[in-house]
Amino acid sequence: MKDLINQIKSPEDLQSFSLEQLEMLCNEIRELIIKTVSNNGGHLASNLGVVELTVALHRVFHSPDDDIVWDVGHQSYTHKILTGRRDRLSTIRKQGGLSGYPNRSESDYDPFNTGHSSTSISAALGIAYAKLLTGQPGNVIAVIGDGALTGGLAYEGLNNAGHFPKNLIIILNDNKMSISRNVGSMARYLAHIRTKPGYFRVKGNVENVLDHVPLAGKPLHHFLSKAKGALKQAMYHNTTIFEDMGFYYYGPFDGHNLKKLISVLENVKNIDHPILLHVLTQKGKGYLFAEQNPGKFHGVSSFDIETGKSISTGENFSSVFGSHICTLASKDDKICAITAAMQLGTGLTEFAKQFPTRFFDIGIAEEHAVTFSGGLAAGGVLPIFAVYSSFLQRGYDQIIHDVAIQRVKAVFAIDRAGIVGEDGETHQGIFDVAFLNSIPGITVYSPSYYDELYYAFDQALYHCEGAAAVRYPRGKQMFRPYDFKSSCNAFDLYGDEKSAYILVTYGRLFSFACKAISLLKEKGISVRILKLNRIKPIDSQVVQSLLGAKKVFFFEEAIAQGGIGEHLHHLLSTAGFNGKFLLRAIENFVPHATMLESLENLGLTEKGMIDTILLECDVQK
Amino acid sequence: MKDLINQIKSPEDLQSFSLEQLEMLCNEIRELIIKTVSNNGGHLASNLGVVELTVALHRVFHSPDDDIVWDVGHQSYTHKILTGRRDRLSTIRKQGGLSGYPNRSESDYDPFNTGHSSTSISAALGIAYAKLLTGQPGNVIAVIGDGALTGGLAYEGLNNAGHFPKNLIIILNDNKMSISRNVGSMARYLAHIRTKPGYFRVKGNVENVLDHVPLAGKPLHHFLSKAKGALKQAMYHNTTIFEDMGFYYYGPFDGHNLKKLISVLENVKNIDHPILLHVLTQKGKGYLFAEQNPGKFHGVSSFDIETGKSISTGENFSSVFGSHICTLASKDDKICAITAAMQLGTGLTEFAKQFPTRFFDIGIAEEHAVTFSGGLAAGGVLPIFAVYSSFLQRGYDQIIHDVAIQRVKAVFAIDRAGIVGEDGETHQGIFDVAFLNSIPGITVYSPSYYDELYYAFDQALYHCEGAAAVRYPRGKQMFRPYDFKSSCNAFDLYGDEKSAYILVTYGRLFSFACKAISLLKEKGISVRILKLNRIKPIDSQVVQSLLGAKKVFFFEEAIAQGGIGEHLHHLLSTAGFNGKFLLRAIENFVPHATMLESLENLGLTEKGMIDTILLECDVQK
Repeated sequence: MKDLINQIKSPEDLQSFSLEQLEMLCNEIRELIIKTVSNNGGHLASNLGVVELTVALHRVFHSPDDDIVWDVGHQSYTHKILTGRRDRLSTIRKQGGLSGYPNRSESDYDPFNTGHSSTSISAALGIAYAKLLTGQPGNVIAVIGDGALTGGLAYEGLNNAGHFPKNLIIILNDNKMSISRNVGSMARYLAHIRTKPGYFRVKGNVENVLDHVPLAGKPLHHFLSKAKGALKQAMYHNTTIFEDMGFYYYGPFDGHNLKKLISVLENVKNIDHPILLHVLTQKGKGYLFAEQNPGKFHGVSSFDIETGKSISTGENFSSVFGSHICTLASKDDKICAITAAMQLGTGLTEFAKQFPTRFFDIGIAEEHAVTFSGGLAAGGVLPIFAVYSSFLQRGYDQIIHDVAIQRVKAVFAIDRAGIVGEDGETHQGIFDVAFLNSIPGITVYSPSYYDELYYAFDQALYHCEGAAAVRYPRGKQMFRPYDFKSSCNAFDLYGDEKSAYILVTYGRLFSFACKAISLLKEKGISVRILKLNRIKPIDSQVVQSLLGAKKVFFFEEAIAQGGIGEHLHHLLSTAGFNGKFLLRAIENFVPHATMLESLENLGLTEKGMIDTILLECDVQK
Repeated sequence: MKDLINQIKSPEDLQSFSLEQLEMLCNEIRELIIKTVSNNGGHLASNLGVVELTVALHRVFHSPDDDIVWDVGHQSYTHKILTGRRDRLSTIRKQGGLSGYPNRSESDYDPFNTGHSSTSISAALGIAYAKLLTGQPGNVIAVIGDGALTGGLAYEGLNNAGHFPKNLIIILNDNKMSISRNVGSMARYLAHIRTKPGYFRVKGNVENVLDHVPLAGKPLHHFLSKAKGALKQAMYHNTTIFEDMGFYYYGPFDGHNLKKLISVLENVKNIDHPILLHVLTQKGKGYLFAEQNPGKFHGVSSFDIETGKSISTGENFSSVFGSHICTLASKDDKICAITAAMQLGTGLTEFAKQFPTRFFDIGIAEEHAVTFSGGLAAGGVLPIFAVYSSFLQRGYDQIIHDVAIQRVKAVFAIDRAGIVGEDGETHQGIFDVAFLNSIPGITVYSPSYYDELYYAFDQALYHCEGAAAVRYPRGKQMFRPYDFKSSCNAFDLYGDEKSAYILVTYGRLFSFACKAISLLKEKGISVRILKLNRIKPIDSQVVQSLLGAKKVFFFEEAIAQGGIGEHLHHLLSTAGFNGKFLLRAIENFVPHATMLESLENLGLTEKGMIDTILLECDVQK
């Protein structure tokens, strides 16, 4: 009896399956996930780890009345399959298709959008209180990985959820990993619990024995009568951190034992108290290549199922940054690298190997990463925090308070700056320009090419005062005209010197701009490009160079409000610019699609540039 | 032998004092602090709580070689007195005087600027690693309150500091308070430790007995031989959360027993391992009024020492918000209020009393507060998170990710928006405009007067889609011309309709603007005012109203880059505005002074406005 998966129209259909059938269903789900991710790219290892857990959840609970909040959400594929989205799974992460993360607008079964780490406990607690206040029925469950538990937000959530007056279930999905191996004291502590399950189960027995122990025998009598209370307290009040935080703790349980999971969930769902359920899973479970290398198979591009080989590889901005920082560190022993659980993604693997004492993977904890960098800098070394743009949003206060106000030199290597493509709206790196722009004293570089990245880090580390950031996009460098040479100045001019039309841009949009002006030239329109290399502060010569232009076209792969385009327009107008200034930037959240599709939709590829310019320019002239 | 305090030129002078003299010194320090704060305003209760602890630290350690990082830093007055700043203590929080917080530019004894909560562990760890890498000598000590420990950043710091390979001392200054009474599971847990000091000390004894227990007696033999290992583990591995996190835990100790503190610090300073020292202190110690009401005496304006009465009181934006939200909540049972340990400061005391089930003090945890609000909203109720502007910086990512992207209605009541005065650069509310401006879909109101605040909340809650914010300044509403009536629209026009000069502003600057145009009128210059009530999005009629102006003067009590001024200038210029646009806003961090002094320095009072306008306008005309 194959094809159980096709019998599932809604989670309620699971009720009629036998345990054996549910186990077969898990296999079918795994197959579908492996096939889908090998085609579309996506998150593989984390999804394969929670197949049984998800099936058990939907067997025991009744969503959408019961709310399941998936922390980070990249492990929600099984949930999507079971909640009426199986047919569309092949569209996942594609334009117009399913999101790679839970999304309220996609399904009633998704109570909260996720994408960034460590939000689920806070969100679930909010939903639970809303139910309590309004009398809506249903359980609330948060599923959070041990990696996400290194984020302070998760702790803040635990600190408040522990005294929720009703049932609230936090499932700790413990796979010993963030994206790479999990770090920090909490990880060590969980490992301790994992290796001593007997110890935590013994407590019931101990208590039982202590209650019935005959108080006989001289040396024991004195000790036991005094210490009995203390021992019982030890057993009760000091079993796990989670009990200390107010939860009933159950576990650890094998997260691939469906029968056990169902029985445990049935047991805890009616307890009027916050529950911490500790479940052990294996990232990549059921696909050998992913089991062996879950870090590599965390988030992947399309790959070959038979060999596990990725279809696209090679040099990109992350890897170029990674080898460059090794070069820099070999010359300057003050350079340190910090990552928030993104060693692989930010290209720091080689650095970690070569300079282990100067490498810090501090867990999924961007706030700490920034403040820690501030401390390192105040202490006299040279920290470089490598981080994805959208995750650095979480360190905004710390950049202001623990770096900029300290007047210290810390450098931010901002990867995935700009449109990231398939991961969609939670992951687009479109805010860093605006939020860095608001911070006094910080210098920001936005290289277009690898060699400009070298130059930018040289400037950021040694030739500007205070904090600095270098931001670069996901993926590879793009088209470069044969006759363009970077000046290593704050900006570059390219194209027809005599043109009254100037296109201003920065970062990888320069590649599209070059194609655009070349095509416009064929139409008889001559446009010059001013490419910003340093986007903050704007060099005064930039304003001078633009003052005489008839029309300025600014294309920006970042949010418009608070971005560089608005700022430059203000500077220009203040300086007496009388021409027309046209800004094309991002005005709203950007859903998933390929990077090129998104840029095209936003009018930020050569096509959009040409259309914008043609509308404004008289072709006959 | 009085006047010991005047013998202290540097902390080294403490070495020659007897214990008795040190105790007398503590009394003198308390007197000086009470006198100073009663004059200048400032933080009283927290400073009185750590006098002995600070004296003990400087007796045992040798700063500046040893680094002491004071979390939040409002308890650093004794530290300032002992480190060569006694003479200038009377200038504290005054323009040009000492900062109310540690400040690297003020003294070599301040290794890290603080002001916001929960940063000290991360910063201290950074400094400690920098010392390790560069071979600089000295211990590193972080002093953090139990309130600050509710912040996720502190947990992220602990998670990393617990496996620092050398000495690193975290002193938990446990006074059972944030600013008001401390909340959450961690607070409950600390209370548990505090009430059972015997229990934690018994562990050594238990272990000793277990090692020497004769395994005799039938029923006990079986149990003990099986459980002995488990019991010992319980004793060792599960004493406190801090030991679970990798620290050696010592405490709790009486934080007012100088002899004990000195002896404990001497003992731990050479241990090559991270230390968590749990010290119990009393907020307000030594000043009866503050002991009895530490919340009120947390941060105070000048007060009368004899009576404890504050010199200035009365209605202000916080209290007006506080009673208005009660009115709203009595009509709408979906309204909930959230505070991050700022019940008193944000005016929520009455709400907490009237609507206890809808009131959430979630600890010093702004990230959680925002995500929790997102969850409440997703669950169908109407959360209002009341928070100081500068602390909301910490929720930037969460506003984007857990509110805006969810497309839910959550409202931010942003208190202390704009210049806050004496607390200085870490506390100025000058970034909220820029960072909210960057977030798609959020609506922002900036009322000038109490009645406009009512209107703004009505709009924010019921008449705009998605998330909204209402921002209002510290203190009272200011000057209002008798003939000005709020329109309850997105903006108001005031003054001479025919004037070609328009002054644009929002919030309390409107009061200065009214005075300015009145004085300018006397000089024969007629200026009209456009006052924005809603600053995001800008109403299209605003642009229309300004298009014909000859000159537009924009005054903004917020950071310039990414602010409303630049955005409006961009909109105006794009719409074809040909006049002159002059923007005066804040370009840099703003040090402590009175609110009026700061605004004056920034050119944002009537004087600055008049000067700016006179420079640009021909007086003869």
